[in-house]
Amino acid sequence: MPALLTYQTEVQADWVDYNGHLRDAFYLLIFSYATDAFMDHIGLDSDNRTASGNSLFTLECHLNYLHEVKLGTAVQVRTQILGVDRKRVHLYHSLHIQALDEPVAVSEQMLLHVDLAGPRSVPFSEGVAKRLLEIQAEQVDLPRPEYVGRVMQLPG
Amino acid sequence: MPALLTYQTEVQADWVDYNGHLRDAFYLLIFSYATDAFMDHIGLDSDNRTASGNSLFTLECHLNYLHEVKLGTAVQVRTQILGVDRKRVHLYHSLHIQALDEPVAVSEQMLLHVDLAGPRSVPFSEGVAKRLLEIQAEQVDLPRPEYVGRVMQLPG
Repeated sequence: MPALLTYQTEVQADWVDYNGHLRDAFYLLIFSYATDAFMDHIGLDSDNRTASGNSLFTLECHLNYLHEVKLGTAVQVRTQILGVDRKRVHLYHSLHIQALDEPVAVSEQMLLHVDLAGPRSVPFSEGVAKRLLEIQAEQVDLPRPEYVGRVMQLPG
Repeated sequence: MPALLTYQTEVQADWVDYNGHLRDAFYLLIFSYATDAFMDHIGLDSDNRTASGNSLFTLECHLNYLHEVKLGTAVQVRTQILGVDRKRVHLYHSLHIQALDEPVAVSEQMLLHVDLAGPRSVPFSEGVAKRLLEIQAEQVDLPRPEYVGRVMQLPG
């Protein structure tokens, strides 16, 4: 099974800079909507969040910008689980123009399961944990993505 | 000389999620506006961009989310140059609630100087390069920030 197709959109007028290109922060907004869709997919949908008072918080995020994207372009996000523990999920999103393989941007993210009433970190419910492990098992043959675990530095 | 104060704002209604907290992508939008202000500061302001056809593109970005930020909160961004070469600047932004020392989020970024007509990477103009080195010299006594050069991974 390939990476999950978690989000599709066209690049909106509000998201482009003075050059008519998608601004850095709005690549992340698209990935953020993909994380919302991923939450729905594992049973942390908005109904569940209201009932349980639990959600995912982003702890850390790494983005690589590989190509410019213009206003109106149809894009999609694919999502791979890199790792899971009792309270955290380590995700990898890639942004693609339509169905092209080569990504235009990628993002590695660490998300923490939180009880909003604290807020404090809490283990995933049994159902969510089971769903995460199922997806991880389905994706076991996916290669480790190129832009994972990078340290940022000037070349040379 | 401390880090530059590059941007100040209040958290806008459009930037908060269903919890009333600043959404992950909008921390980056605030940092993105701080980068715009930094560009103004080094002589890559919008007039110059139009005249020269040059701008800065984000190549890579790393974010750490340290505290939640609520709607209406007054925040400010401080900016430190971590490194410079002929075409690149390695920046560190930190987001603070008003004048508090402890950041609520930080971002390490690698930016590339680009001729938009290509687009292709080009060296900084002499004036911009001089300004970057001046700021770097002014900040020489600032300690290396905590969240630099991190590799993302699950604990344990």
